[in-house]
Amino acid sequence: MSRHTPRIAIVGVAGRMGRTLVNAVEQEAGATLAGGIVEPGSSLVGTDIGELAGQGKLGVTAVDSLAAIVDDFDVLIDFTAPQVTLANLAFCADHGKRMVIGTTGMNDAELAQLDGYRTKLPMVFAPNMSVGVNLTLKLLETAAKALGDEGYDIEVIEAHHRHKVDAPSGTALKMGEVVAESLGRSLDEHGVFTREGQCGPRTDKEIGFATVRAGDIVGEHTVMFATEGERIEITHKASSRMTFAKGAVRAARWVADKEIGRYDMQDVLALN
Amino acid sequence: MSRHTPRIAIVGVAGRMGRTLVNAVEQEAGATLAGGIVEPGSSLVGTDIGELAGQGKLGVTAVDSLAAIVDDFDVLIDFTAPQVTLANLAFCADHGKRMVIGTTGMNDAELAQLDGYRTKLPMVFAPNMSVGVNLTLKLLETAAKALGDEGYDIEVIEAHHRHKVDAPSGTALKMGEVVAESLGRSLDEHGVFTREGQCGPRTDKEIGFATVRAGDIVGEHTVMFATEGERIEITHKASSRMTFAKGAVRAARWVADKEIGRYDMQDVLALN
Amino acid sequence: MSRHTPRIAIVGVAGRMGRTLVNAVEQEAGATLAGGIVEPGSSLVGTDIGELAGQGKLGVTAVDSLAAIVDDFDVLIDFTAPQVTLANLAFCADHGKRMVIGTTGMNDAELAQLDGYRTKLPMVFAPNMSVGVNLTLKLLETAAKALGDEGYDIEVIEAHHRHKVDAPSGTALKMGEVVAESLGRSLDEHGVFTREGQCGPRTDKEIGFATVRAGDIVGEHTVMFATEGERIEITHKASSRMTFAKGAVRAARWVADKEIGRYDMQDVLALN
Amino acid sequence: MSRHTPRIAIVGVAGRMGRTLVNAVEQEAGATLAGGIVEPGSSLVGTDIGELAGQGKLGVTAVDSLAAIVDDFDVLIDFTAPQVTLANLAFCADHGKRMVIGTTGMNDAELAQLDGYRTKLPMVFAPNMSVGVNLTLKLLETAAKALGDEGYDIEVIEAHHRHKVDAPSGTALKMGEVVAESLGRSLDEHGVFTREGQCGPRTDKEIGFATVRAGDIVGEHTVMFATEGERIEITHKASSRMTFAKGAVRAARWVADKEIGRYDMQDVLALN
Repeated sequence: MSRHTPRIAIVGVAGRMGRTLVNAVEQEAGATLAGGIVEPGSSLVGTDIGELAGQGKLGVTAVDSLAAIVDDFDVLIDFTAPQVTLANLAFCADHGKRMVIGTTGMNDAELAQLDGYRTKLPMVFAPNMSVGVNLTLKLLETAAKALGDEGYDIEVIEAHHRHKVDAPSGTALKMGEVVAESLGRSLDEHGVFTREGQCGPRTDKEIGFATVRAGDIVGEHTVMFATEGERIEITHKASSRMTFAKGAVRAARWVADKEIGRYDMQDVLALN
Repeated sequence: MSRHTPRIAIVGVAGRMGRTLVNAVEQEAGATLAGGIVEPGSSLVGTDIGELAGQGKLGVTAVDSLAAIVDDFDVLIDFTAPQVTLANLAFCADHGKRMVIGTTGMNDAELAQLDGYRTKLPMVFAPNMSVGVNLTLKLLETAAKALGDEGYDIEVIEAHHRHKVDAPSGTALKMGEVVAESLGRSLDEHGVFTREGQCGPRTDKEIGFATVRAGDIVGEHTVMFATEGERIEITHKASSRMTFAKGAVRAARWVADKEIGRYDMQDVLALN
Repeated sequence: MSRHTPRIAIVGVAGRMGRTLVNAVEQEAGATLAGGIVEPGSSLVGTDIGELAGQGKLGVTAVDSLAAIVDDFDVLIDFTAPQVTLANLAFCADHGKRMVIGTTGMNDAELAQLDGYRTKLPMVFAPNMSVGVNLTLKLLETAAKALGDEGYDIEVIEAHHRHKVDAPSGTALKMGEVVAESLGRSLDEHGVFTREGQCGPRTDKEIGFATVRAGDIVGEHTVMFATEGERIEITHKASSRMTFAKGAVRAARWVADKEIGRYDMQDVLALN
Repeated sequence: MSRHTPRIAIVGVAGRMGRTLVNAVEQEAGATLAGGIVEPGSSLVGTDIGELAGQGKLGVTAVDSLAAIVDDFDVLIDFTAPQVTLANLAFCADHGKRMVIGTTGMNDAELAQLDGYRTKLPMVFAPNMSVGVNLTLKLLETAAKALGDEGYDIEVIEAHHRHKVDAPSGTALKMGEVVAESLGRSLDEHGVFTREGQCGPRTDKEIGFATVRAGDIVGEHTVMFATEGERIEITHKASSRMTFAKGAVRAARWVADKEIGRYDMQDVLALN
């Protein structure tokens, strides 16, 4: 970490993710909460962002532009929308700031624009900032390589809330891909996404997926390696947006003294 | 239980289920192991059935016919094959014996023949003798009725060994049916057996099934009731054939002093 | 439910539980959000309680006294502090209102005062309003009675966040008591709360407790009934305050057309 | 693996572990079952060891001495008792055989004797031959190092059958030690083995242990790393002696072409 504690500003503190980020920064010893931005015209301008986040007054009031706090922060955390993020990148590059970006849903053109800033400021960009998910991918690689083709059946079980529209989850697919690659298999060939009726016995190389959709489950993923006599299960459970928020704060502290460039969570966690 | 401890004989002690039954009887205070039958011509005739079952000499040797031990037992436990079981029913009816039958795979004609014995001897017949599975069905009914239509999503998750050829398991389907009936729903209409790709958000009334196939899992079933803020999970895990063997021994002790008739595990467990 | 939708007011909408209650009422078809109270002098008076709760404007503004909304609501939900709750009981009894009370930490004198209102208004009072926990207690009773003394070992495993100061949790103890009573055992005699070192084999009648303290776990409880060959596990997982909030809203809808009296969640859920 | 398939003999095929080893060898493509030894005087001499193991005739009969099959095998697997194992080591060293030893309960003198054979034959000696447990230890090290002191609470939860006399299990303690060492902590200082009553909030550096004793659980271990917003859980479940048997067969295949020396499972699995 840098010699001084990085001062962090957060975009979108009126939203759920923004409030969670406020709480995450407050819990960290090595970071200072320096500012919060809400949409222009919001009735929340001027309120205390601590009160907004449900933890009492923090003495930092919500503003409606980055310009209003330009001298107050070092790193901006942004989990908003593509066009907002691109505008913030321009501002931060111009003013010597750093960014941590968790915004999703960018199209190819927007991703290309974002990538253009890799020579203009230090930024961490990752679609999933959970420390645990990124670590889990590493553990899966280790496990798959050690167990090799010794008769361990591999299954990925994931559960998410009732509103999720796709199956399996992107993270479950990513986990399956990491395992498949480690074993020299292809998920296209060996992934089994449904089982119903008389489907016959399991084949040796298949990687099965099971999907649960219920209630408010934030996200649970288990990869099981099972053979005669034993199972190894590697599980990640997200219990709140806090998992992404804490990853973002960890990234903000990490990027505070890095060179200009584009980084991801594997860099932050030194898992590469 | 009757005044004296029932004396139990077991058909098929050379097989895995038979050996497990020997161990189950030996563990019970209220039952005596009185005989074991192997196939005619087996090299195991005359061996000690305790040694066969891996627990040292018990002083009971394997024979190859019920006639050889006709004076020694009160209740016969039979987990064999339809034709063997029907022959044993004839013998037991003729000689005043009782039976506990866990044989599966009977066709309609065989089932009708078996049912004909309901007026000739006391027998317990059940396709799944696990005490736990039968209790679990009762718990599911209670839970479903209490939660009603108050926004709880219901999912059934089951895991079995790699050799299982059908999905979901018969027990998982039975669990789903019990829940559906308790809620006035139809599994045909509301059962969701696969989810893949862009399948959209969960509907309120669906009952989802997720299937895992891996390793040597004997059989695990979880029914989850999940809503905003909480989940209730009712889980049954079979760890060995012992679960069926112990249910059978419990049934044998129960049937030892019952009237002539045909009973099932709900009778034995007084869950009706 | 009554012919018209009950209008619900919530005390303490600035706090986490209050915000969660706002969200719970908004999710229910059969209830209307009619008012929210914050502490006198709060900077949040006049703000929209929907915005406070993080879900956008609802058109209901926070006030600082019940008197200000006396004509607007039918049922008050109160998860605050003993003295606040007692004052609110007096107000509601005087003005023909009903109450749902989840306030904890009352001493004997305060409990006696509260109980005095059982002849003055309809109220539901419960220390744990989770529908799931109350149902789980019922399931445990059923399971314990069915399994009886047939060799099932009983263990209670609970996990809570790092800040919890006591072990096992009150809910875990309650679960153990329900099981013990159903089996004619005493938790004082048969409860085993620690195991360390050479503690010898398990005794038949003990009810073991295992405690996990980690991270942000809201509250997870599993009661395991295990024997040779199988396990039944009954699990409750709270994922957020929403579980208590939803129970409270269900209680508010239920109490809306009940006679004067004091009720608990077993009444609301018809589990008695 | 060597050019030809190693021929494996098993000591103690009358016992449960011996029978499990017979089944494990039969399931492996890269190994041949070449002999089985029972105690001198056993009624099982001359029986088919396949029938003994419950899988039908294999054409290999039980003998009561190694000398009787000295020309038939390459590697001996031995999970017996200290004195038996030491006698077998002498025989194998004299006759150019290799050994895989899972015998436990050796005292220091016996261990020293065993170690003396490291210059006389190739042998693998490990108190726990489970591939999964050994891999799990590696995963724990990786996880602990990556999560470091970033606010993840660590808990070890283990469950075993009712007959187990000590708590926590040796494997649970080993897992705790691996985590502690990876974090520069001492289990003596930071291990928390019991929690009861008003024990106060969790401390940051403690490593908690929770113990479950019930039914026939072969052995389940979970290490949980939990923080605000997420949990990573690494779990090992042994479902039968087969886990140790399969590890032993893997070791037998591995040692079949190794130099004289003493090896452990980390060598076999290339995890060092």
